[in-house]
Amino acid sequence: MRRIKLTVAYDGTSYCGWQVQPNGITIEQVLNETLSSFFKQDIRVVGASRTDAGVHALGAVCTFDFDHTMPADKVAFAINSYLPDDIVVQCSEEVGPSFHPRYDAKEKTYIYKILNRKMPLPLERFDTHFYYYPLDEKKMNDAASHLVGEHDFTSFASPHYTAKTTIRNIYECSVSRSDEDIITIKIRGNGFLYNMVRIIAGTLMEVGGGKISPEDIPLILEKKDRDAAGPTAPAKGLTLVEVRY
Amino acid sequence: MRRIKLTVAYDGTSYCGWQVQPNGITIEQVLNETLSSFFKQDIRVVGASRTDAGVHALGAVCTFDFDHTMPADKVAFAINSYLPDDIVVQCSEEVGPSFHPRYDAKEKTYIYKILNRKMPLPLERFDTHFYYYPLDEKKMNDAASHLVGEHDFTSFASPHYTAKTTIRNIYECSVSRSDEDIITIKIRGNGFLYNMVRIIAGTLMEVGGGKISPEDIPLILEKKDRDAAGPTAPAKGLTLVEVRY
Repeated sequence: MRRIKLTVAYDGTSYCGWQVQPNGITIEQVLNETLSSFFKQDIRVVGASRTDAGVHALGAVCTFDFDHTMPADKVAFAINSYLPDDIVVQCSEEVGPSFHPRYDAKEKTYIYKILNRKMPLPLERFDTHFYYYPLDEKKMNDAASHLVGEHDFTSFASPHYTAKTTIRNIYECSVSRSDEDIITIKIRGNGFLYNMVRIIAGTLMEVGGGKISPEDIPLILEKKDRDAAGPTAPAKGLTLVEVRY
Repeated sequence: MRRIKLTVAYDGTSYCGWQVQPNGITIEQVLNETLSSFFKQDIRVVGASRTDAGVHALGAVCTFDFDHTMPADKVAFAINSYLPDDIVVQCSEEVGPSFHPRYDAKEKTYIYKILNRKMPLPLERFDTHFYYYPLDEKKMNDAASHLVGEHDFTSFASPHYTAKTTIRNIYECSVSRSDEDIITIKIRGNGFLYNMVRIIAGTLMEVGGGKISPEDIPLILEKKDRDAAGPTAPAKGLTLVEVRY
């Protein structure tokens, strides 16, 4: 058996998230079925991140084991012909038998995109969260800088989730506005709690709208209380950009 | 009767272009039906540009006449609720009874986007033309500079179309590559012949791929022969950005 690592981009709009579940089609399911059918063996991928329904990816990572002689780099091209347009393997490479996409991940990068203008733009409707009221991206960026570093992110995690530790190290968190009025929150860290990026996005939006001051962020972190932070921003604005090992 | 000017953005993916035609749904048709139904009178829009099937817009312009007291700026918000997600009126304003969206247009801006990398990106699949082989955007930009100015664009027009004159003045034509490997051709001029931007895009791609040299562009213009230029690039990469008056 050989272990193959896939880097996968997808438009999550039509999927019930990454993980196989009984009530709808998922990215994991499509990959399992396409790989199994193509290589004529039962293949199950193991993913690095279980993205929610509607979340997108530029560089999600998963591995699978198979018994086949195809050169690793050809796998991506081979199965892309059989995948739908909204899932595209970006690259495929062979890894050692002990490589684990989740446990070995050292760093993840996400972006959250907000289309902040008076009218929606149809071409941006799948991967941005449209927001009508003006947001101050400079204040959002000031607030974001307070999240950088090692902190207990209990206030920024869904309380329905239990992780071993709620301490995470954020290496980068920045906010900028494009000419097309897309506000992009970029966040890079050693790991993220459940819904953490979407709660950070929702909180930074409250800062941008003047409801929370940038200087309140350290206090929100200190409280270790989900209710202290802002709402969870909608899934469609979130994209997993990269997983590093 | 009052005349209203609409600036309209649309994702052209699901439409048979702008102009009403018997064999499929068009942008013009959806606007006519939505406006007529909303204002309970027979409304027909007059467009500035008849974009082809699959072409998109950020700022297409049309006008219509109606008998109603609604403030002009409210029209956009009112009808957006009844338009599909892929057509959004960006703004509405009142214009004089002699204003004509096509004849009064002074300047149009288009962009043509090419996703130039080894693998497609699902989130870019609707408004970029995916192209696998590497393109040299610097050569493309050099070639583009030769198109700026007043020229006879017969070589860059579909021969099935008869315009009064084939002379057009191009104010700007530039090519750049983004971090995501999207090559954007931006072109601004006093008007464009049928398929002109797509033929320019197809020709610049031949330059980027080394088949045509940037210095050949003046010769191609001189020949006044459609066969001298490159192929017509696919519709999906083209977006009408702005019409100025």
